[in-house]
Amino acid sequence: MSIINLDHISAAPILPEVQEAMSKAIKTNYGNPSSQHKIGDKASEALETARESVARLINAAIPKEVVFTSGGTESVNHAIKGVAFAHADKGNHIVTSNIEHNVVLRSLRRLKMMDYQVTSVPVDEYGRVNPDHVAKAIRDETILVSIMHSNNEIGTIQPIEEISQITREKKVLFHTDAVDSVGVVPIDVQKLGVDLLSFASNPYYGPTGVGGLYIRRGVKVWPILDGGVQENNKRAGSENLIGIIGMGVAAELALRDLDSRLTHVKHLREKLLQELPNYLSEYYINGHPEKCLPNLVSISIKYIEGESVVLMLDEEDFAVSTRSACAAGALQASHVLLSIGRDFADAQGTMVVTFGVDNTEEDILRFLKTLQEAVQTLREISPLYTQSRKAQAAQA
Amino acid sequence: MSIINLDHISAAPILPEVQEAMSKAIKTNYGNPSSQHKIGDKASEALETARESVARLINAAIPKEVVFTSGGTESVNHAIKGVAFAHADKGNHIVTSNIEHNVVLRSLRRLKMMDYQVTSVPVDEYGRVNPDHVAKAIRDETILVSIMHSNNEIGTIQPIEEISQITREKKVLFHTDAVDSVGVVPIDVQKLGVDLLSFASNPYYGPTGVGGLYIRRGVKVWPILDGGVQENNKRAGSENLIGIIGMGVAAELALRDLDSRLTHVKHLREKLLQELPNYLSEYYINGHPEKCLPNLVSISIKYIEGESVVLMLDEEDFAVSTRSACAAGALQASHVLLSIGRDFADAQGTMVVTFGVDNTEEDILRFLKTLQEAVQTLREISPLYTQSRKAQAAQA
Repeated sequence: MSIINLDHISAAPILPEVQEAMSKAIKTNYGNPSSQHKIGDKASEALETARESVARLINAAIPKEVVFTSGGTESVNHAIKGVAFAHADKGNHIVTSNIEHNVVLRSLRRLKMMDYQVTSVPVDEYGRVNPDHVAKAIRDETILVSIMHSNNEIGTIQPIEEISQITREKKVLFHTDAVDSVGVVPIDVQKLGVDLLSFASNPYYGPTGVGGLYIRRGVKVWPILDGGVQENNKRAGSENLIGIIGMGVAAELALRDLDSRLTHVKHLREKLLQELPNYLSEYYINGHPEKCLPNLVSISIKYIEGESVVLMLDEEDFAVSTRSACAAGALQASHVLLSIGRDFADAQGTMVVTFGVDNTEEDILRFLKTLQEAVQTLREISPLYTQSRKAQAAQA
Repeated sequence: MSIINLDHISAAPILPEVQEAMSKAIKTNYGNPSSQHKIGDKASEALETARESVARLINAAIPKEVVFTSGGTESVNHAIKGVAFAHADKGNHIVTSNIEHNVVLRSLRRLKMMDYQVTSVPVDEYGRVNPDHVAKAIRDETILVSIMHSNNEIGTIQPIEEISQITREKKVLFHTDAVDSVGVVPIDVQKLGVDLLSFASNPYYGPTGVGGLYIRRGVKVWPILDGGVQENNKRAGSENLIGIIGMGVAAELALRDLDSRLTHVKHLREKLLQELPNYLSEYYINGHPEKCLPNLVSISIKYIEGESVVLMLDEEDFAVSTRSACAAGALQASHVLLSIGRDFADAQGTMVVTFGVDNTEEDILRFLKTLQEAVQTLREISPLYTQSRKAQAAQA
């Protein structure tokens, strides 16, 4: 496949070192870490080595604060529902923001069906939450604040440290969905001051379907998977050892290479933003210009449909997305784009480009050329575009 | 590792064909099945091919009735809590048996903390549930019956078809935990007449950390993982595609080779049972003599501790377990063995041997020799054994 992947947020390729570790484990390490014999011991050692690597990546105080899960979705569900159920005696109110990932939104919608209450704070035109709004939303019955670290559609990074000062003062638990941040930008759970942090393995070139939940020691959370005593009694189920081994190696590499990866994707991002006006007119760049993911560009292109651009680019072997793959089947205008003030039409004309270590400057230039042609073709058949041209001509 | 694995129920090795499919996918198929471009299409095709293979293994009416999960534990949690939450308006009562796996027990214990009620029916000396007891336990508020297909400690297989006749008549949903049955004995969800069936991949030599939940079409269950629209909106989260591909291939092989595997493990089981009296005295075989898993032997050995035998056998490179690995850290007498009438001491002296395609008759004979020596050594230092010998001598 000679397809150029500019949709790393949906799926990043697995790094060769990770591939190798996983393929070796498939052959030689099939054990159950809970077994009390040599086959189990070998599995258990690999599991704890991976836990140490992952704990280092997020700077957890102790490895046991990392609970392995089946991915970012399970981590977020575990954090939100686990706190809600475990602290139901204290209160039933949760504070979140208007631009959370669907996993947070739908976990909270589920809790609302079970008589929990949710306050959602707005964001500014760049998608940033104002910490004062969070402070005002917290009441006596508030048991949890859940605000994402970085947004998966527009890349904006939230003021997590400022919010955690408020939650600590008010003695409310704080969860952050950092699925698109961990392994991509430096993350230090202790510096962030959060109680729970959700993350996955694929954003830093590990396998999909494996993730982690940081639970600060002492924080009470109900498991959502009950059963055996795995994961220090915090998450039942025989472990996806192959995936976890891959995640561990990916975490080590991410920690080692974070600086060079940041430099690489930042350069590609700047190149794209700098060249874009030469290929495209009438578009917006969404998200905060500085407080943002270094590997993401969200572009709202006027008078066209994002879905159509994605399909046309796919024909030319460029993979991009309109937004996260998880929402691909949803067919609604993005709540994130509407929240930052885009209108329905512009939201529909949005495309998300996400870079990775496998992309080159050459990819960007070839992509821009193809995008230019696709947009031109689409605008030629767009009634909105024709109207707009006529209006401009009449004014002239 | 030249260890002889007689603990397949804790972890079975991954078959070479499955290893190969997984290792290939790690290199070439990293996509997100929800993405709307070629990288995603390739992932999506692999996902649906695996779903078809797994659906055939359990004879689901349509592939969409199979939902991929992170393993048996998630499947059981999803089934039990998913039905409990989705049908809370109808009732809050669940019927189960006294010898369920910890995953069922603890999922139900969790629900009890949320004001659900549970009736647990007893089993006979072989560990069999009497369907009449299930019928009597069902009341107006009953929303679910959850009875396992086969028991993971003693191997007894339950009269699922008879129970499903009752649940269908009484219009109550029926879930069976078939984690240790699917891929080991023939399973036909339509013939069994169940509404939900939990299973995993490792019992038939696929990877751990991946499983499935059969949800009969039309059955209303809440997801326990909310978020994206994956798995036909029944289970959110980017898929563990590598694991699922492995599960699919393992399912195909299980269906193809089921007869020969059955013959093989049945022969080993018969050999062990037939030879055992030549190596050991004063023991019980637990479970039903015919209605049982073909690959499992549970032996209660008097006057010794099962944990000690397991450790001594491990020293000699034989892997066995006292019971499921999931319960290894629990340090309590098995509720299953107490339920079939074993006393506390005999329950503690129990060892579970589970065979696989990689075992030979030679393994069994070498194992018996080593077991004989271990038991002899342990009995020599056992106060219970010394007492019993003295009592016998006094009587003589």
